[in-house]
Amino acid sequence: MNRLESTLSRIHDPDKAAMEAARSRQARLTKPQGSLGRLEELAIRIAGMKGVERPRLERAAVIVMAGDHGVCVEGVSAYPSEVTPQMVRNFLAGGAAINVFARREGARVVVVDVGVAAELSPAPGLYLKKVRPGTANIARGPAMSRAEAQRSLEVGIEVFEEEYAKEPFNILATGDMGIGNTTPSTALAAVFLGTSARSIAGRGTGVDDSGLERKIAAVERAIAVNAPDPSDPIGCLAAVGGLEIGAIAGAMLAAAASRVPILVDGFISGSAALLARALCPTAQGYMIASHASADSGHRAMLTSLGLDPLLDLGLRLGEGTGAMLAFSLCDAACRALDEMATFDEAGVSEK
Amino acid sequence: MNRLESTLSRIHDPDKAAMEAARSRQARLTKPQGSLGRLEELAIRIAGMKGVERPRLERAAVIVMAGDHGVCVEGVSAYPSEVTPQMVRNFLAGGAAINVFARREGARVVVVDVGVAAELSPAPGLYLKKVRPGTANIARGPAMSRAEAQRSLEVGIEVFEEEYAKEPFNILATGDMGIGNTTPSTALAAVFLGTSARSIAGRGTGVDDSGLERKIAAVERAIAVNAPDPSDPIGCLAAVGGLEIGAIAGAMLAAAASRVPILVDGFISGSAALLARALCPTAQGYMIASHASADSGHRAMLTSLGLDPLLDLGLRLGEGTGAMLAFSLCDAACRALDEMATFDEAGVSEK
Repeated sequence: MNRLESTLSRIHDPDKAAMEAARSRQARLTKPQGSLGRLEELAIRIAGMKGVERPRLERAAVIVMAGDHGVCVEGVSAYPSEVTPQMVRNFLAGGAAINVFARREGARVVVVDVGVAAELSPAPGLYLKKVRPGTANIARGPAMSRAEAQRSLEVGIEVFEEEYAKEPFNILATGDMGIGNTTPSTALAAVFLGTSARSIAGRGTGVDDSGLERKIAAVERAIAVNAPDPSDPIGCLAAVGGLEIGAIAGAMLAAAASRVPILVDGFISGSAALLARALCPTAQGYMIASHASADSGHRAMLTSLGLDPLLDLGLRLGEGTGAMLAFSLCDAACRALDEMATFDEAGVSEK
Repeated sequence: MNRLESTLSRIHDPDKAAMEAARSRQARLTKPQGSLGRLEELAIRIAGMKGVERPRLERAAVIVMAGDHGVCVEGVSAYPSEVTPQMVRNFLAGGAAINVFARREGARVVVVDVGVAAELSPAPGLYLKKVRPGTANIARGPAMSRAEAQRSLEVGIEVFEEEYAKEPFNILATGDMGIGNTTPSTALAAVFLGTSARSIAGRGTGVDDSGLERKIAAVERAIAVNAPDPSDPIGCLAAVGGLEIGAIAGAMLAAAASRVPILVDGFISGSAALLARALCPTAQGYMIASHASADSGHRAMLTSLGLDPLLDLGLRLGEGTGAMLAFSLCDAACRALDEMATFDEAGVSEK
């Protein structure tokens, strides 16, 4: 059994007894029943994931998977690929949006080179796990070999497990960096949802009308040329995916195997979630949708995953930024369940 | 000039130059332009309120105004009035949802008895500023005298100014406690928006169908009996309002006069915001809508105020809980504007 198979074998359904205990406690807290809206069910879901009545989150980790994309030569992105390593260095220096949001929440940020098309120097907080220096152009052939796809998933598992062993954390926020990566994400989503590229594709970091048309055409060609089969998830990743997308899916599966809730970031993480779910449907029970991206296809991904996003702020940055913003809501929901007084304790009349 | 008039005279428009400087900085930060969605404009608005290019929030204060409502005898609430002082004690003991959320954000919570229908003992964090022990039944006559309405507004101003003098804070979160207070809030909103009670009324903390019909009937009678004139805001507050609603409006006006952003909580704070805006349209420029309440009439209030809520989580608790949850987004937005590296600083290519 390889590392992926062993991880999949350890993923089990959330704990129903813990959810029932949490639900019963929720009803005794000093507030009208249901008055905390979606935060109540959120805390109950997290109780089930962690298998305890009163879960605490507090310590989050953001794992930012970075990779490059050969499809950029098709003119699908507003930025050149050189921005991927530049932004990795910005993450390591603490200057990016994800650093700001993670600092605010006391969360650690680690960055993983799983497929950047440039040499990166060793640095604290950087995992050097390059599977290959960027994918090939999916509009002309497969993104990578099947072995490389498998390896990218395993990189995600490895990094999750190494970080978790260093110091456990209570929730995983997924993040990505990779110029051009909404294009393979669109392709994977179109394949897994059985829909058209056009219905999923958006402007990503901000392409104009002609860029959007080039992107749709590239995805259509990628699917036509590679003919990915949705019943073969690793084959789909190899055909039209990305190295960071595979690594995010791997980290998600490792989190589910460790009963760690997964805060799914935006468009790229959404496609990784579809991939993780295709590999193990039970993993879906550990996913929380942080936000609805400005790219409208993201909604279709979340609907398919049965997830309702917590935030809808028009974000389209990636890096894990939406996940870290939603972390504060998840943490507040769990703290309310744990810390609020009950009617009995506070001497407050129930209706 | 009385205290209210003097406060109104000190409210000025947000600072356009600071907003322009913030907008220009926003465009130089290491992210695609607009990729932080609504958080970008939010930080720019706060820059205008505070009159600086890079505002910081960090320290928030929640002021929870508490009062009782004579209209409860009409059977408009799922809870008895005795819950109002019980919940005040729960706030002071730290056991309520607002305490949990405020602790998470390092925010202080102060509670104001502006009209609770029970004697409360002095306690740290409690302002004893009772104008009268609850309103009269608005379905039969005015809630209070004009002098009492004026005084409730001044209580809000006084408490804001005393707290601010003790230790300045950077943003005000409004909160309320008062069994039955969605009924006068519905009445005030119907009057200020020129619409029907039925189009605004919701289930509040959870009345059933017949309770909702009693509530609508009570608001309709209150408006028929008292004939409030929307061009006379203090008269409206006296006719169909509530003491805590007046005090929230007063605190909002004091905040605007001190260039302190106002995080407007839910349904009750929404009606107070309409009252504050009626007294001083410029105050609207200092308001941020934290969330859309589960009670659908709240949307109509926010639309009239030109505000788009940050969160939509089905909350219907009050206390300032929605405001404190949205605080984390406002704070993150300002930190991103202040702390992120620019393209130049980080050596990242612009498109």
